[in-house]
Amino acid sequence: MNIYDVSEHAGVSIATVSRVLNGSPNVSEKTRGHVLQVMQELGYTPNVFARGLGLGTIQSVGIMCSDSSDPYLAHAIYHLERGLRDHGYDVILCCTGSSQETKRNYFDLIRSKKVDAIILAGSKFIETAAEDNDYIIEAAQELPILLINGFLEAENIYCTMCDDRSAMDYAARQLILSGCRDILYLYSSRSYSGRNKLAGYQDALTTHGLPVRREYICQCPKDILASKNLLLDLHRRGLPFDAVLASDDSIAVGAIKYAHTVGISIPDELSVIGYNNTNLAICTDPELTTVDSRIEALCSMAVNTLMGVFNGGDAPSRTIIAGDLIKRASTKF
Amino acid sequence: MNIYDVSEHAGVSIATVSRVLNGSPNVSEKTRGHVLQVMQELGYTPNVFARGLGLGTIQSVGIMCSDSSDPYLAHAIYHLERGLRDHGYDVILCCTGSSQETKRNYFDLIRSKKVDAIILAGSKFIETAAEDNDYIIEAAQELPILLINGFLEAENIYCTMCDDRSAMDYAARQLILSGCRDILYLYSSRSYSGRNKLAGYQDALTTHGLPVRREYICQCPKDILASKNLLLDLHRRGLPFDAVLASDDSIAVGAIKYAHTVGISIPDELSVIGYNNTNLAICTDPELTTVDSRIEALCSMAVNTLMGVFNGGDAPSRTIIAGDLIKRASTKF
Repeated sequence: MNIYDVSEHAGVSIATVSRVLNGSPNVSEKTRGHVLQVMQELGYTPNVFARGLGLGTIQSVGIMCSDSSDPYLAHAIYHLERGLRDHGYDVILCCTGSSQETKRNYFDLIRSKKVDAIILAGSKFIETAAEDNDYIIEAAQELPILLINGFLEAENIYCTMCDDRSAMDYAARQLILSGCRDILYLYSSRSYSGRNKLAGYQDALTTHGLPVRREYICQCPKDILASKNLLLDLHRRGLPFDAVLASDDSIAVGAIKYAHTVGISIPDELSVIGYNNTNLAICTDPELTTVDSRIEALCSMAVNTLMGVFNGGDAPSRTIIAGDLIKRASTKF
Repeated sequence: MNIYDVSEHAGVSIATVSRVLNGSPNVSEKTRGHVLQVMQELGYTPNVFARGLGLGTIQSVGIMCSDSSDPYLAHAIYHLERGLRDHGYDVILCCTGSSQETKRNYFDLIRSKKVDAIILAGSKFIETAAEDNDYIIEAAQELPILLINGFLEAENIYCTMCDDRSAMDYAARQLILSGCRDILYLYSSRSYSGRNKLAGYQDALTTHGLPVRREYICQCPKDILASKNLLLDLHRRGLPFDAVLASDDSIAVGAIKYAHTVGISIPDELSVIGYNNTNLAICTDPELTTVDSRIEALCSMAVNTLMGVFNGGDAPSRTIIAGDLIKRASTKF
């Protein structure tokens, strides 16, 4: 006899039973009475000893991310935590840094806590070599795993992502339509999401019959100063470019600072587009045109998917949200 | 009979009992033997049912914050999580929003999880009316409570904070020494930390024999656009000011945008100083002079304090770190 039985007999969610057990105010008096009555009928009593040990609830979700201070991931964690809390789930947070070994060790650690699910926030958790992801697929036999902006096809793995490829394709096409021909593409990572963004840039060039040139595709740390210095270096080496399309706002901010340094006017001589629509994009002068990857909506979908899984209903294994191009003053369109 | 009894009878911390239960290697053989003997004497057996339910460890710390996507708090959470994880503690994250009632409800909820400690990150958790904080003082009779940038004097409450008053005093004095006389002070909150910052601004004026004028002290949301609009309004109303000192970088960014809008040159006609040294401060042109409140060092001290408490050693009830003024191009000094 456990709260799953109570949930089934009362015809309410596990989260509701949990809220009643925890004395949460977010349950109507009617529902509370009904759940308590079912508990009595079933002879269910919450495990007092377990509660004494610190187990007021057994509902928790582990959220793993490389760095919770990254603006994009910070927003993801905020919206996921609030959504899960609303459903009565605790969030156990785990910041892994970016080494693959550490990520895997922490994954095993969080799994050993017997959380109800693990959310991997950010596409850096999925490695390019398929066998490097086997441990995730194996873990999914025991508990649902949800990827935010990552993709892995296996039973009990659920992916929620922004359609980065189409969003980047659209952004690049706007640059081309506004007259740009030499578009630099700066990216920080070749993660799943990173590869999709790059493909979107290439799609746009191909659609418009423009060449995809290797020297116009540069890796750059997600760092304002690093991006500025990279562009100063390309400038010195005489590479002509009339637009910078970046996989992250911080890289795009570096492009704006580069232009100020060398006295290039934005957007007349150089157009700049960022990604993620963080607060950084409205600090610069001119403000940055950027792709809003709609993290709040994406996290809300992710929480809904997970609740669908927990409640045994149909949950889509893949949910995709469209990005939005936010037009500001760093582009001519 | 629970591990608290075992801890008391064995004369070791809860954390040590937990490490023995979990087979952690970080316990000496002597201590392990002693704890196991006490368990046997007391007839204590770990609750296998509870462990099967997902309780491989019982070591956890609850971190509460109003909004984990705020850049300052996002960094705090990142550094706290990594520090606590290094010591084998899970972090249960709880984002409360800013209503006092919600904060209190969530506090009670986290407390009911029997975490080993609660960290309140950000000074907004401490209310001005003393009786509104009684529930925290009461909870501290059961578990240690650590405040990041908040202050409350009571048994088992530990405060780690930046010396905001001195830092703001120093920043304001630099403005005065560089010739500014009409210094606007913009702040977002009258929290403990907010009141200290304001006092620092007033200290500097008083030291230099300048008047503290009410119309030069304005509340402003932590929002770039709100700050810009507030300054445009003051400008239209003819209030003369030659410097803006802000309690947060985002407010200072608004001041830079205001200056660009009305064609005022920074720093020649207007000096601007922010607070927290977030990434926003290096996005603007010119880059922002700002106070680095040294969140990483502060969180590291907080984790050390907590480990001192857990291990039964001496832990300082109040730890203060000095802020650093980072000089960039938005000021004349």
